[in-house]
Formats: sequence, C-alpha cells, structure tokens
Amino acid sequence: MEHAGSLAPLIANNRVGEDIYRLAAEIFPICRSITGNGVRKTIDVLTRHVPFRCQEIPTGTAVLDWEIPKEWNITDAYIKNAQGERVLDYHRSNLHVLNYSAPVNRMMPLSELKAHIVTLPDQPDLIPYRTSYYKETWGFCMSHHQLAELEKAGGEYEVVIESQLEPGALTWAEYLHVGDTTHEVLLSAHVCHPSLANDNCSGLALLSILARELAEIRTRLSYRFLLVPGTIGSIAWLAKNEANLERIKHGLVVSCVGDAGGPTYKRSRRGDAFIDRAMTHVLRNSGTYPNILDFFPYGYDERQYCSPGFNLPVGLFQRSQFATFAEYHTSADNLDFIRPEHLAASFRWIVQTLDILERERRLVSLRPKGEPQLGRRGLYATIGGDKDAWTQNMAMLWALNLSDGRHSLLDIAERANVSFEVIASVAALLEEHGLLAGLDS
Amino acid sequence: MEHAGSLAPLIANNRVGEDIYRLAAEIFPICRSITGNGVRKTIDVLTRHVPFRCQEIPTGTAVLDWEIPKEWNITDAYIKNAQGERVLDYHRSNLHVLNYSAPVNRMMPLSELKAHIVTLPDQPDLIPYRTSYYKETWGFCMSHHQLAELEKAGGEYEVVIESQLEPGALTWAEYLHVGDTTHEVLLSAHVCHPSLANDNCSGLALLSILARELAEIRTRLSYRFLLVPGTIGSIAWLAKNEANLERIKHGLVVSCVGDAGGPTYKRSRRGDAFIDRAMTHVLRNSGTYPNILDFFPYGYDERQYCSPGFNLPVGLFQRSQFATFAEYHTSADNLDFIRPEHLAASFRWIVQTLDILERERRLVSLRPKGEPQLGRRGLYATIGGDKDAWTQNMAMLWALNLSDGRHSLLDIAERANVSFEVIASVAALLEEHGLLAGLDS
Amino acid sequence: MEHAGSLAPLIANNRVGEDIYRLAAEIFPICRSITGNGVRKTIDVLTRHVPFRCQEIPTGTAVLDWEIPKEWNITDAYIKNAQGERVLDYHRSNLHVLNYSAPVNRMMPLSELKAHIVTLPDQPDLIPYRTSYYKETWGFCMSHHQLAELEKAGGEYEVVIESQLEPGALTWAEYLHVGDTTHEVLLSAHVCHPSLANDNCSGLALLSILARELAEIRTRLSYRFLLVPGTIGSIAWLAKNEANLERIKHGLVVSCVGDAGGPTYKRSRRGDAFIDRAMTHVLRNSGTYPNILDFFPYGYDERQYCSPGFNLPVGLFQRSQFATFAEYHTSADNLDFIRPEHLAASFRWIVQTLDILERERRLVSLRPKGEPQLGRRGLYATIGGDKDAWTQNMAMLWALNLSDGRHSLLDIAERANVSFEVIASVAALLEEHGLLAGLDS
Repeated sequence: MEHAGSLAPLIANNRVGEDIYRLAAEIFPICRSITGNGVRKTIDVLTRHVPFRCQEIPTGTAVLDWEIPKEWNITDAYIKNAQGERVLDYHRSNLHVLNYSAPVNRMMPLSELKAHIVTLPDQPDLIPYRTSYYKETWGFCMSHHQLAELEKAGGEYEVVIESQLEPGALTWAEYLHVGDTTHEVLLSAHVCHPSLANDNCSGLALLSILARELAEIRTRLSYRFLLVPGTIGSIAWLAKNEANLERIKHGLVVSCVGDAGGPTYKRSRRGDAFIDRAMTHVLRNSGTYPNILDFFPYGYDERQYCSPGFNLPVGLFQRSQFATFAEYHTSADNLDFIRPEHLAASFRWIVQTLDILERERRLVSLRPKGEPQLGRRGLYATIGGDKDAWTQNMAMLWALNLSDGRHSLLDIAERANVSFEVIASVAALLEEHGLLAGLDS
Repeated sequence: MEHAGSLAPLIANNRVGEDIYRLAAEIFPICRSITGNGVRKTIDVLTRHVPFRCQEIPTGTAVLDWEIPKEWNITDAYIKNAQGERVLDYHRSNLHVLNYSAPVNRMMPLSELKAHIVTLPDQPDLIPYRTSYYKETWGFCMSHHQLAELEKAGGEYEVVIESQLEPGALTWAEYLHVGDTTHEVLLSAHVCHPSLANDNCSGLALLSILARELAEIRTRLSYRFLLVPGTIGSIAWLAKNEANLERIKHGLVVSCVGDAGGPTYKRSRRGDAFIDRAMTHVLRNSGTYPNILDFFPYGYDERQYCSPGFNLPVGLFQRSQFATFAEYHTSADNLDFIRPEHLAASFRWIVQTLDILERERRLVSLRPKGEPQLGRRGLYATIGGDKDAWTQNMAMLWALNLSDGRHSLLDIAERANVSFEVIASVAALLEEHGLLAGLDS
Repeated sequence: MEHAGSLAPLIANNRVGEDIYRLAAEIFPICRSITGNGVRKTIDVLTRHVPFRCQEIPTGTAVLDWEIPKEWNITDAYIKNAQGERVLDYHRSNLHVLNYSAPVNRMMPLSELKAHIVTLPDQPDLIPYRTSYYKETWGFCMSHHQLAELEKAGGEYEVVIESQLEPGALTWAEYLHVGDTTHEVLLSAHVCHPSLANDNCSGLALLSILARELAEIRTRLSYRFLLVPGTIGSIAWLAKNEANLERIKHGLVVSCVGDAGGPTYKRSRRGDAFIDRAMTHVLRNSGTYPNILDFFPYGYDERQYCSPGFNLPVGLFQRSQFATFAEYHTSADNLDFIRPEHLAASFRWIVQTLDILERERRLVSLRPKGEPQLGRRGLYATIGGDKDAWTQNMAMLWALNLSDGRHSLLDIAERANVSFEVIASVAALLEEHGLLAGLDS
C-alpha cells in the first residue's frame, strides 16, 4: 500500500492560531449545559467548518450505570430590586445562573435569597461557575462585591429564572476523517461549559479547525472527532459504541488549550500506551518545561475512556493543568485569557503527535555489517561549525545502527535524544539510498 | 469463610506504651546470656502475660552447622582491693562481667588483671557490654574512670567470678496465636542480652504485650511469637522446625524499639516480600523519615531466617539502627533511654503492618465500564474545603479504577499515595454498595 | 579442568608505565595513515616486544560496504618562499601535511595556496590534524601564527608534497594469546594516526606491553590483540573473520589512554554485556569519578564491532573522552601530554577488568541453612578498629549469603558494594574450607 504523507503541511498554516481564536470567540457567548439548545447551537456554528454529525439520545435512556437526564433550557434570569432595576442579569453573563437551575419566580428577602447565592470571597471581582446537574435546585453566581452591594441595599428582591427542565435529549457531535485504515484516533472535547474561553471553547475550536485542515490530507489512520457533554456525554457515547471500541488505537482529550501555561500531558491509565510515548516525546522536544503526569482517576472524559472496563489508550492534553490556575471556573476565563499564539502552539504539538502516530514504523538496515560508507553516497552533510549538519549526521548513524528490526523510529528518536521528525526524515533519505527498508509497509 | 476483623482495636489501647515500658523495666535487672537461668527467669516473668511454652535443648546437640554450648550461670562477681572493699560489684551492674565468663578466684596484681578488663576510653563514664561465647575466657567491663581509679591505687586485687559453665540446656520461649488459617507470621526477638533496656528488653516486652492483646482478636493469619537467644537460638529453632517452615508467610525480627530514633526497617533478603512492601508503606505514611534499608547479612536473627537455604520473608524493625547510636551496647542503654511513647509508636506501626497482612486482598469492580454514579448512591463525601472528604473521594475513584482483578488493596494504596487504611475502608464501603466484590474471599 | 590463575601479577610490575611510555615515544615520530609504510614501520617496532602477525589486503578488494583504498606514502613536503627557505617543513611535523594528500609540485600565489591551508584560529599556536581519505585533494595544516607570517610576507610560494597514491595494500597487526579456552577477548587499537601521542601511540603501546606481559601467564580466555587502521581496518578485519566472530565473548577498544583525564568507559551497544558490567565495576571502585557513557554510534572502531549485523560485546576505554580535550587532534597531543603514571593506571584498570573476565564464576554454599560457624574455623578476621578486617568479614558473610547458585562473584561484589577482588579472594578462602563449591568449574 502506498504510504499516506506526513501531517507537516498542517503546521505550515500560519493563520491557524487566529482561526482557532476567532472560532472560540464565536461560540463563547452561547449558554451551554450538559443538555439543551446551547449544545445544539454550538454544534451548528462549528458545523460551518466541519460536517459534524449531530446525535441525540432521549431523556431517561439508561447508559451504563447512568441515565440521560432532563433537557435544560433557559431564556432569561435576573434579580430585580425594589426599584425594578436588574441588579443581576443573565444576559450580561450566563455564569450568573447556577448551571442546570430549576425555574424560580418569586419575591423574597435577601436573607432567603442568600442561601442560593455563590461568590468567591478570595477573588471578590469574579463570578464563579457552578453547576447542579444531579440535585434539582436553583441558584445564582455573582462577584463578592455584587453581593456586598445587595447587602448594603437590603430589602426584598424579585428573583426570576426562566428555565425549563423537561424530557428531551442529550446532544453530541461526531465527525470521522476516514484514513487508509480503520484504526482510529479519538479526539474528544467537552461541550457542556457555558462562557468559559479556555475551558473549553478553546478545545472545541481547536479540534474543529484541526478536522477542517485534516480534511485536505490523506492519512493512514482514521480520526474520530467527538464533542460531548462532560461525563454523561462520553458515557452515552461509550454505551452506544461499545462494539466498535477496539478500533480506537490512540486518543486525546483536549481542554484548556489557549492559555500561556504548561504544556501538560496526563498519561492514559495504561501509562505506556503509544500515545503516551508520542506526546511525551513531542513535549520534551518542544523547548518548554512540560508537565507530564501519570494517570489519576479525576479530570475530564479520560476518566470514562480509561475506566477499567474500557481502558482505552487515551491521554489528556492541556496547557495549564485544570484547577491549578486562578481563572479556572470563573468569569476571568474569558477571551482575554486565551491567545492565538498559545492556541497555535497547542495545535502544533497535537499535530506533531499525530504525525508520529501516522509515520511510526520499523525499518531494517540492508547493510547491517559495519557502517555503510555514507561519504561515497554523498550522504554526509557538510561538516564544520554547522550544528544542524552534525545533528543530521548523528541521526543517520543512529538510524543505521538501531534499525535492526527491533527498534521503531520513535525508539530511535528517544534513544538518540533527537526529535522524531529528524529521525523520520533521515530514515526516509536512507531508504531512498537503499540502506534501510521498511518492515511494516 | 467469614472474614476476620481488622487489628485496629489493638491500636485503640492508650496504655499500651506504659504496659510495655513497665514489663521491660521488670525484666531489665535479670542477667541473661545465651543459656542459663537468666533466660528462664525472663520467660517466667513474661509468661504472666502470655502462655509462652518454654523449650529446652541439651548442651552438645548438633543444630545445623553449630552445637548447643554449655549452660552458663553466675551468682556473684567482684574485684576487691587490699582493704577488702568491692571496687567492682556484679550486683551493681551485670554488665560488669564479660558475659559467659569462666569462673576465676585469685589474687593478682593490676598488671595481670588489666589484660581482662575492657573499657570505652571515648565514653569514659560508661560500662561496655561484651561477650565471649565461643572462646572460653573471663573478664570484666568497667568505665574508663573506674579503671583510672584502680591504676591510681595499684596493688593486688582479689578477683572473683562465681560462674558455672556446665552441660545443661539452651532455652527459648514460643507462643502461637491461632488464626483462621495455618499461614503464619513469625515475630522474633532476642532474649540473650542482660541489662540493656532498648536492646532488647524493649523488643521482648513489646512482643509479649502484642501477643496478650492479640489473644482477644480473631485473625485470619496465625502468629508465632519467638523469644530466642541470638544466633544459636534461632539456629536451634530453625533446625527443630525445618519441616514446617513453609507455613511462615511473613516475619519480623523486633529489637531496639524503645528509643526516639528511626524508625528503621531492613528488608528481607528477598527484598520484595509482601512484609517488605507492607512495612515500608506503613513507615512512609507515618509522618516520620523512615530509614528503609536493603538486606545485608549482618545484624540480628534475620541473618539466620534469611540464610540462602531458608530465605524466609523476614525483615527487621527497629527505631535507631543497631550500632549507630552512642548508647548501643553500653550501660547508657538503660531504662531512661526508652520511653513509653516510643514503645507505643513502635507497637502501632507493627500492628498497622500486621493489619495490612490481615486485610490485603484483590477486589473487582462490578461496574467497570465508565464511572459508576456515586452521587446517586450518596457516596460522595460533602465537598468544599474539607481535605478529608477530598482524600476520601479520590480514594473511592482510585479503588474503582484499579479494581480490575490485577491490583490488590496495597497496590492501590501505593499507586494512589494514600494509606492502606483509607483504601481498605473505602473499598469496604464500595463493597457494601455492590460496586466492588472481593476476589480472594 | 584446573583453573588458570589471576592476572594480579601483571599489576605488580612497577615499571609498566615507563615501559609503555618509552614504546609510545618510540613510535611517535612515524608518519602513519590508513595505509602505507608508516603502519608497517610501526608494527615492526612493536613486534620487537610481541610476535604480531602482519596482515595485508590489496587495494581494490571489496570489504563489506567498502573497498580497500590506494596505498599512501610520503617522503617529503614543504612550502618554500621566494628566498628558497622552507617556511613549512614536513620533517618538522608530519601533521603539517593533510593526511592522505595527493602529490603537488607547483609555484602559486598565497591567494591560491590559502584554499589548501587549515589552521585553528582559536588555538593559534597549534597545528591541527586533518585527513582526506575518501576525497582526493592535497593540503597543509599549520598554526594560525604561521599563516599570519605567510600573509605578512605575501608573494609566490613553491608548494611541494612528494606523496604517492597507488595500488598497494592495507596493513594490520594481529596477535593471539592462547588461553585454556577458545573464548576470546578482543583488544583493539587504531594504528592510523601520525604523530599524536595520546591518540593513539598510547593505546598501541599499552596493548603491546599488555600482550608482552600476558605471554607469561596462563589464562582461561584467549586474547586477540588487533592494531588496525581506523574504520577501514576494522571493517576489513570483520569482513575476513566473519565466520569466527562468535568466539569473541568480550572486547575493548583502547585509545587515548595516557592523559590525566577520565577515566571514561563507553558501553557496548548491548549496554549490559559482561564487559560493560566488569569495567564499570572496576572504574567505580577506582577512587576516581569515572565517566560511564551509554553507547552512541560515533567514535572509534567500536562503531564497526557494534554495528547491528555484528553487535559484538565491545566497549571503549579512554582517559579523557575523545573530542572533549583541547589537545585533541592538534600538535599539543604530544609526548608531554601523556605520562607514565597515567598509562600505568590505565593498564591497571584494564588488567583488573580482564581479571574479572578470567575469574568470574558462580559458587554455591555447602552450608546454606543458617550461617556456618566461622569462628570455629578461625575464619573471622581479628575484630576491633581494623577496617580491613570488617570489610573482609562482611565480604565473607555476603559471599555465603548470596552463593545460592543464582549469583556470580560479580553479582555479589556489586550487591555488597566491595571490589570483585575482595569477594573473589574470600570466596577462594571459603572454598578451601569446604563452605563454598564452584558451580561452573
């Protein structure tokens, strides 16, 4: 079979950071939750770039140990003071409403209202993001200063949340880029958070742009893009796709990919899956100080993919690790917090990792006894002060020395302590000159 | 089979440190050696608390590569000056006599006597502890100051050791706490040192009180307590019990457990025996800086249990490591050097280790696909600032994620970096709720 | 089979450093290259000490992926100024000629000559060493100061290299010390560098003196000494001896062994070959801070021995690592740069390593149950402040404890953290006393 090419062209796109940023900004205002029209609207926007298939599963359906909850929709929410002024307005920030709130419409004194208000006393300017999916209640989130104002004013308030919690459906989006083989790479992002830019408009936009760019490229592997509500969405998807899971050979959960921190990679439960080695290699060769974490059973949807009954080879890529940055789950996780250049770097590292998945193979030396005479073939790069030539020459010697049928390109890159890219390119050159031959092709 | 309970109740006894201290103090004055009435008398005292079975084996019996030596007894020893004053008196400290000394009764000048005197010039106030088991001689140990006094006085001395070295027996004590299975834990202490409090009145008293407390408890494993003269005692016991050694699944030698140092654990020769992992886990979760040593063929009776022909899974537990503290083998190893609180801590760590031996097992998740919904079952502890609740919740997620039939409770505790106790308790809770099931019960 | 003895006597020779130095000094002036009379002359000198067998292989012969090149010989070379003075003279230093230069004999202006001159601007006093084996050209090497003088003078120069590049032969030397078995140790040094003392007159002289000294000794293993032109020489030897390579059980490439740096050991490609463990053990017990490197496919002839098609267990021993010292490949690598005492230390570490190869074996305890009673047999060294006695006693306890048929002497030495020499000697003592028995003899 003729080999599919490398993913390098995807990195050549200089505008990719801006493209991702613009798309993240476009979906930022939408009020998402684990169910409802916010998810549908978000998918509609993204489908302008990628032919996502929208899937729904009705309220009450049993999925693994869980059940699809009611669908939540919201049209308005506010708190009005005695003067009829909106002192809190859902339309200014959808974080103001406790996500998945039941409806309410009553006059009440502040003393009663306060039991339904969440603030962040240590970050008094910020609105927290809170949810109550599995316990029916209602509530508001506001800055601590805002609460102080209400307390100063006192009195009665008109408290309104115009929401519906009714039988409906859970919604997710799926897109398959078909490659030469049915071996799949799962790329998953959560679609349930409202106006939080890094967590996870960034991940949704990055995967969408990646899917768009990948469409132009012939690949060896197939790529399954999945935008699912957190926890219940991946559980529903796993329940519906249980029979086909062995197709998934590698996977990444992608979230919080637009800030300046990290990069962070959390290994799959297996710990030594190929995706774990590939992404670790990319980040360790990135010129940054990556944060490589062993698996732990808390976080995003990797918790479900890596539950013991599935144990899929799926890791988590982030910039700053979740719950470790001050903006996490607050109104400060806004469009100023993410930058095109950070999105572009995240995109590049993910593509470099996928490129390793695409190109990994074992070669075997056709001149294994003694070194082949590279000079005669014009293969030695010009020597001298040229550091790149030295790296290139050493890479050739490593590729020849370790291509004994037992070492793959990534094995060689790790042992030689140079990037996969360099090893893969000298291997291709040596293959052209008849010094190496592919074992797996 | 119904499971035996945990050993936690043993730790609840607040007075255990005082109990051990009092018992150590009671046996402290007795002049022990590798044979003789000192050992018998010591066992008599301890048998008031535990029904030890006293065993004897006659002088001259071949045991492995050794032979039971003569029995040594002593009634008096002194050095008298020209004025008839006892300038050294065995009744003031039994350390004054070279342990296992042959009898002597002669006048001699100091010049001759000096060849039989041992002092510690670097610790001039202390009496050293010395023995000569396998080369027949006589001698005295005294402080360097005491020797200086003698030298000032000069002259002739009456030198008397009223001892007997005659055919008799080697004596040891044994007690078996019978559990639900015949799998045994060997707990061994040396009973041959005279008035040294830490080395090893502390170990003898701790094991006796442990045996007493354990008597009240139903256990899964059986516990064999062994108080043996060092080296020759364990060799004799091994020789007599060779046929039954495969019952011993775990073991600890216990000595010097009353001082403020350490804790120290020296691994068995195997290095990865379960006792090695269990005790290392307990000490690393103890809030101290434990000293975990690989096996070396020098020390206490673990040398014999871990000889290559037996290779039993037996480690050594101590506070300060032997031969590393200034009081070691001197008159400063007295009842002021050991404290009830240190004895209590040693007791607690040993019991926590035995508790792991008792409760270790593998469970398997009954909802292995995706996470089970803990909230619905009321299993999530209250969230918020509560650090214990967070630890508890993470422990549940770890127990569920790793209970795949391949990981035991200790495996999970090590991986999750929390104590065995926490993992074992959440596992029990999850078992009650039908989420985990025991594999080994 | 009766065992051959230890190599310890070789170390007893106090004059070995001077002997090696003198021999290195004797061959230093000869102008060597990968082919030609320089190699032959060098072998002639060395053959006065060792009956090396000189081997030749004609120009044009195919060897593995290579071909034997033309034979290079040189009689004179110089640059004369307008006054007829030799401003550069091959007879003052053979480094002045680009090694393997084609002949030239022409008047030319400095502007033309300069394209053929190599200097070291950063080390302006030193003449560099350069070669051009596989691209036919001519050139001169000189100090940067010398070039400055020429530039000051300007004008036309008479440029002469009286060399021949003609069909001839490649030459190498080989000597086999025959031991009790056909298992061979390969000891290889490159013979192609001209007047560079450390690189590699030192290695050639050391191996020759080692071969001379070894001749007196009965050994278990056979030792194959090989003095080969770098790269092409080892490739030619491998091509001619391919059928017998499985005889080679261990090997060392030896170069740059006379300076004060290091010691350096570069592991074989296997990484865990016995030679790797043995030499690492010797250097780590040498009281120095050795530089132990994993294999990399660049350096001396270990590149060829460790190519994947051969993968021989051959490491590289050096003092300073090649290319890391300022004198490397310059005229400063002269007879002042190497010292008898450094040569003697290199010799000693190599012999200690070979001694491990000779004496390594597994023993089994004949009293594996409990400790044997060493005191009764007079085996305990006198105790007390004697540190050697303590080391000796611990070594005995380790040898007894680990001689279970699974651990070799080197295993025990590594575990006990004492030198192989100490373990081997106490093992011999315990064998005499019937406590250990050899498994492999």
